[in-house]
Amino acid sequence: MFTDHYELTMLQAALHSGAAHRRSVFEAFARRLPDGRRYGVVGGTGRILEGLEHFRFGPEELNFLAQNNVVNDETLSWLADFKFSGNIFGYAEGELYFPNSPILTIESTFAEACILETYVLSILNHDSAIASAASRMIGAAGSRPCIEMGSRRTHEESAVAASRAAVIAGFHGTSNLEAGLRYGVLTLGTAAHSFTLLHDSEEAAFRAQLGSMGSGTTLLVDTYDVEAAVRKAVAIAGPALGGVRLDSGDLLAQARDVRALLDSLGNTNTRITVTSDLDEFAIAALAAAPVDSYGVGTSLVTGSGAPTASMVYKLVSREGDNGEFVSVAKAAKNKASVGGRKYATRRLNSAGIATSELVGIGHAPAADDNDRVLLEEFMVDGVLTPGWTGSDGVVRATARHAASMAEMPGAARRLQRGEPVIPTEYEQAIPAAK
Amino acid sequence: MFTDHYELTMLQAALHSGAAHRRSVFEAFARRLPDGRRYGVVGGTGRILEGLEHFRFGPEELNFLAQNNVVNDETLSWLADFKFSGNIFGYAEGELYFPNSPILTIESTFAEACILETYVLSILNHDSAIASAASRMIGAAGSRPCIEMGSRRTHEESAVAASRAAVIAGFHGTSNLEAGLRYGVLTLGTAAHSFTLLHDSEEAAFRAQLGSMGSGTTLLVDTYDVEAAVRKAVAIAGPALGGVRLDSGDLLAQARDVRALLDSLGNTNTRITVTSDLDEFAIAALAAAPVDSYGVGTSLVTGSGAPTASMVYKLVSREGDNGEFVSVAKAAKNKASVGGRKYATRRLNSAGIATSELVGIGHAPAADDNDRVLLEEFMVDGVLTPGWTGSDGVVRATARHAASMAEMPGAARRLQRGEPVIPTEYEQAIPAAK
Repeated sequence: MFTDHYELTMLQAALHSGAAHRRSVFEAFARRLPDGRRYGVVGGTGRILEGLEHFRFGPEELNFLAQNNVVNDETLSWLADFKFSGNIFGYAEGELYFPNSPILTIESTFAEACILETYVLSILNHDSAIASAASRMIGAAGSRPCIEMGSRRTHEESAVAASRAAVIAGFHGTSNLEAGLRYGVLTLGTAAHSFTLLHDSEEAAFRAQLGSMGSGTTLLVDTYDVEAAVRKAVAIAGPALGGVRLDSGDLLAQARDVRALLDSLGNTNTRITVTSDLDEFAIAALAAAPVDSYGVGTSLVTGSGAPTASMVYKLVSREGDNGEFVSVAKAAKNKASVGGRKYATRRLNSAGIATSELVGIGHAPAADDNDRVLLEEFMVDGVLTPGWTGSDGVVRATARHAASMAEMPGAARRLQRGEPVIPTEYEQAIPAAK
Repeated sequence: MFTDHYELTMLQAALHSGAAHRRSVFEAFARRLPDGRRYGVVGGTGRILEGLEHFRFGPEELNFLAQNNVVNDETLSWLADFKFSGNIFGYAEGELYFPNSPILTIESTFAEACILETYVLSILNHDSAIASAASRMIGAAGSRPCIEMGSRRTHEESAVAASRAAVIAGFHGTSNLEAGLRYGVLTLGTAAHSFTLLHDSEEAAFRAQLGSMGSGTTLLVDTYDVEAAVRKAVAIAGPALGGVRLDSGDLLAQARDVRALLDSLGNTNTRITVTSDLDEFAIAALAAAPVDSYGVGTSLVTGSGAPTASMVYKLVSREGDNGEFVSVAKAAKNKASVGGRKYATRRLNSAGIATSELVGIGHAPAADDNDRVLLEEFMVDGVLTPGWTGSDGVVRATARHAASMAEMPGAARRLQRGEPVIPTEYEQAIPAAK
């Protein structure tokens, strides 16, 4: 029951007026990107589709709604029979989006689409915020792998979704075991400071970890003195030591010192992982440091300054009494919307580089051979189109993200604030068309 | 399995060395408050305790860990039998906290406490961030009720936890129905712009809502023209119209215009609710406007600029081979900690106003009659102390928050950036005591 109270009171009033059964088109989109970002990344589509089959109102929920007089008996009876039976299409998960990109379109009766508002927006807003931040970090890290380890900084279920979104955006793996279980993504991790402190000496802790995990493990070397710890680690593990981790202090200087020390001791293959409150800017600043991988936590799971993607869910078209669809939009003040069902194409030049996001209202925009149609079909008459959910969906979204990034002009990877890297353009609207 | 990979590899290595069975004391605390905040609010304790009884490793989880070679057979066997059997004490949910307040202490074997790290921190970091932001909004709103309606801007499960945290901090109710079902909090809501757009006219939409919900409902009046909508609403509903909602534009000016219009039409009892991207600063700016209640969304569920509470979970004391407890702490660089088991008291002056947070290491700080001991007992030998969980826990936490706020100096309510409103002071440390 991830539903806001007003969705059910609207449903009740619309059942009362009879308008609940009008065919309607709702659209999820973002009016703008977070301040200064060049692009957004669609996240969560697979999770929306996975959850829809469980989006039902059972006896416990109906009893709660009845006892608290949330809605009347007619509405309870409708909810008891509810199962989404409409159509869903939109941008593939992992795809880039821009202001007003029609990311997800839901076509059904008003009643069915209305009660999905909070559920759809919660997932899109959270997962897209994380995927968008993660993609910038991947850009900053270049060829060095990034590991997601922010679970502890966000809600326990958000953490699983954040791991999934990070992998879609290009992260190598995650610390989150539940994400591994649910989505088949790679999980990684070795030890925390508490493990060192638990033992009577750092040497005892290293011996315990190496003895149990083998010499390929990564030792955390900054509990006491880094140089002494690295020397101890090499003395015990020898040249096969897999890696060392730095989690505090001046990472740039320390990474250089530790690399030089490891090399001088003959451990040229021992890797250096850094992990202290990194964001895309800190990662970029470490580009010249001898670092082999980045562990990213807080900044990733909080969207690096943009913890939500500002997506909204708006009725853009609905049936009139004559059965014809009518484009609709709120007119007032600072939240005006563009009515009508949308279609979208990414315009590419002859070199395959994106130049604009072209949106057609009521029909697909005219496209030439280079252009790429963006809308995919996720659900038809309540039946899921295969390939978008579960582990397969994550693999597919990861590939989609990489391919979409490859189409972007180089300016997409700039970290400094700026305008969206390509503009969103509307073809001339065709009024009141379906 | 809300657990990070490294917790289980640490467990394996500690089982290997034998240190896994050492009695250990872990502490959750925040080194600092979010930038410029005067206090923090503890959120999530009840949820941690509710979830602990389900924190087990079942066949599906064990199979995943085995197939992916996360840990060895000895560790799998230990996990299969795991049920937390230690002690938990700390600050009551709803209590205020300050830098280094010992918010939650977990005392058990290293093995048992180690694997709770991510679970405990996820909940505390998320729920405390929301409760802390919510409390500032309540302060800004004064006697006017605030309604939580941010579910759509955060992960679908975070939304439920955010509703709960907001109510603990003093919110009147929430839009989130699942929070109502799980925690018995008040849910509220009427209609969105889509409901107006669904109908052939605003008048038809108003008639439908009033016909179904009664004249006490709140009508959304900014889909087209606000003045025209208010006149229509009053013409249809009469003087008994419950309220109108403004969701866009210049809320201060509009609220004044709408109030004057309603009064001129005789609707002096019709309330005005405003709901457009409010945060504590916008709420404060509306103090002089004729607004009856605030609906708060995005800013609340994202912690109003501080989406996570920066809490950490550190081993502070553990048994040595001789059975004596030893205080331990990481020494290196910018993340030094204070070792030893902590106790805390809020020092109050003779007028009952808080003057400092007093922390004793290894023993309870000396207190006089005015002072208030802060640590509560949540779990003993794995058995829950009643009263902290479920709906009862929410009611208790709400009362605790109100009482703790009443003890604070007036400066706690200042919105501008500043230092914590009371300092955290350590009594002289007693080295290496339990």
